[in-house]
Amino acid sequence: MHVLVTGAASMVGTKLVARLATDQSLCGQEIDRLTLLDVVTPDHPQGFGGACETAVGDLSDQTTSEAAISGRPDVIFHLAAVVSGEAELDFEKGMRANFDGSRRLFDLIRTAPDYRPRVVFASSIAVFGAPFPDAIADDFAPTPLTSYGTQKAMTELLLADYTRRGFLDGIGIRLPNIAVRPGLPNKAASGFFSSIIREPLAGAEALLPVEDTALQTHASPRAAVGFLIHAAGLKATSVGPRVNLNMPGVCCTISEQLDALRRVAGDKVASRVRHAPDPFVARMVAGWPSRFDPRRAHALGFSGERDFEEIIRVHIEDDLGGQYVS
Amino acid sequence: MHVLVTGAASMVGTKLVARLATDQSLCGQEIDRLTLLDVVTPDHPQGFGGACETAVGDLSDQTTSEAAISGRPDVIFHLAAVVSGEAELDFEKGMRANFDGSRRLFDLIRTAPDYRPRVVFASSIAVFGAPFPDAIADDFAPTPLTSYGTQKAMTELLLADYTRRGFLDGIGIRLPNIAVRPGLPNKAASGFFSSIIREPLAGAEALLPVEDTALQTHASPRAAVGFLIHAAGLKATSVGPRVNLNMPGVCCTISEQLDALRRVAGDKVASRVRHAPDPFVARMVAGWPSRFDPRRAHALGFSGERDFEEIIRVHIEDDLGGQYVS
Repeated sequence: MHVLVTGAASMVGTKLVARLATDQSLCGQEIDRLTLLDVVTPDHPQGFGGACETAVGDLSDQTTSEAAISGRPDVIFHLAAVVSGEAELDFEKGMRANFDGSRRLFDLIRTAPDYRPRVVFASSIAVFGAPFPDAIADDFAPTPLTSYGTQKAMTELLLADYTRRGFLDGIGIRLPNIAVRPGLPNKAASGFFSSIIREPLAGAEALLPVEDTALQTHASPRAAVGFLIHAAGLKATSVGPRVNLNMPGVCCTISEQLDALRRVAGDKVASRVRHAPDPFVARMVAGWPSRFDPRRAHALGFSGERDFEEIIRVHIEDDLGGQYVS
Repeated sequence: MHVLVTGAASMVGTKLVARLATDQSLCGQEIDRLTLLDVVTPDHPQGFGGACETAVGDLSDQTTSEAAISGRPDVIFHLAAVVSGEAELDFEKGMRANFDGSRRLFDLIRTAPDYRPRVVFASSIAVFGAPFPDAIADDFAPTPLTSYGTQKAMTELLLADYTRRGFLDGIGIRLPNIAVRPGLPNKAASGFFSSIIREPLAGAEALLPVEDTALQTHASPRAAVGFLIHAAGLKATSVGPRVNLNMPGVCCTISEQLDALRRVAGDKVASRVRHAPDPFVARMVAGWPSRFDPRRAHALGFSGERDFEEIIRVHIEDDLGGQYVS
């Protein structure tokens, strides 16, 4: 089996590729070839026995996208995206990367003779915009309040229509907030959901810009990789025409996140979080979807963590080698 | 005020232009200039005192779309579209006309300095796909089951994001089934909803391809024109960020349509409808949305007909000069 990963150098992409390399198989078939694409050179995964090619470029570029699918990968994990903050600041860049790039990929598949790969598209809960019902089900209308969310929602529509017409075999998964993100803080406004766990475990202070009553749904990077892999193996007939799915996650308040941190790592670690209100971030967070009704995802066998303690333990295991600064 | 109508030679476009020419005003301002665009030459409206230019072409063509907005129209009624049957048969043509054409129009507006016209976009209930709740509200997710519906839903998302960002001032209205369509039968699968009224009133037999229990929501062409004109005058602040709205209509079964025909025009006219089951059409109709909850549209002052009798009377007045073959 030949697998293509776009956005392979991203945080989730890197972890997905590592998992594929470790498993050496997908959907019960041996992976003998990996193609990794990103705007920066993706690393070759350690320990992978098959062929592995890396490519650098943007899918909205014809040559890049043609090269990416020239080997006719059987499964395509389409993760490549410009993040929400950047898509908001640079509208044209966001449209080009997030929408035009996806469309070009889909169109190259559509026009290739006798080719109908499984395409797993990493969408986002950013397709939703306030006001929200108590729990957002799959039939709640995407009315995004960011250009990023708009571009993801448009790509979801394309994915569904291309699947319906038999041009490709698509599944879109709307990832919840991914926590705990390893590494340095990034500029995403949602970054604090991770940094209030990651920094204290590293012995550093973290700032909490919102009230601790703020509610959000989280999945670990490991769970996100699990969703992607599970999606790759789903039968199209069991998904039906509504191919874009809300993923499950742990819905909790920040106060509950910090309680979990205290239980896992002790009072001293949890005390490294300092409340530093930022009205700008607070306003953004208030407009984000917080709670989902992922009954379709559950029925299709997707599963995330049970509670936020588990999410913290996954971070300590996967990213900290089992160690933290107590 | 300068008004641009795209799709000006379409059935609804022609009636909209006639109404604008008669009113000579829109949103309380005098119309001194009309620009009419379509793929076939639109007629100059009778009795219009201002300047009227017509243009022939497709919005996906750069020169055509640049010319269309070069006069910086204050209000743009964007009706141009390839119909659902054609968009399904010729995927690329549908994408080009329905999505790329709309995007080009919106992008030319976006990149024009100091220009932010009101754009009224004629969307469609085809953005929805079965299964449906009992009544489809504005927050029900568009999961179209046709490429036409997909292209309309993608354009709605663009319209909302471009409006949110201040690139233009958009409102999208999802038209229900338009009946009674005047003129010759067309090839739309939904055509029978009109022909079972129009043909009997013209003394001809009409075929009913589905059971008379089939439910659908209708508005007359006159009501559709009224929706477009009402949308042009709405304050953006009263609409909010969810700029795409389900329109009101008369929800009734075919049996109720025929009862209304009997009451308006008598038994002899109503007896000209013959049941000729067509399983292909019946399957399509079963997948169409039938009943809506247009509470947002009502709150914003949109109103359609009260019952199907009124829809028939509008047809007799507007299209038959008050006469029918009894």
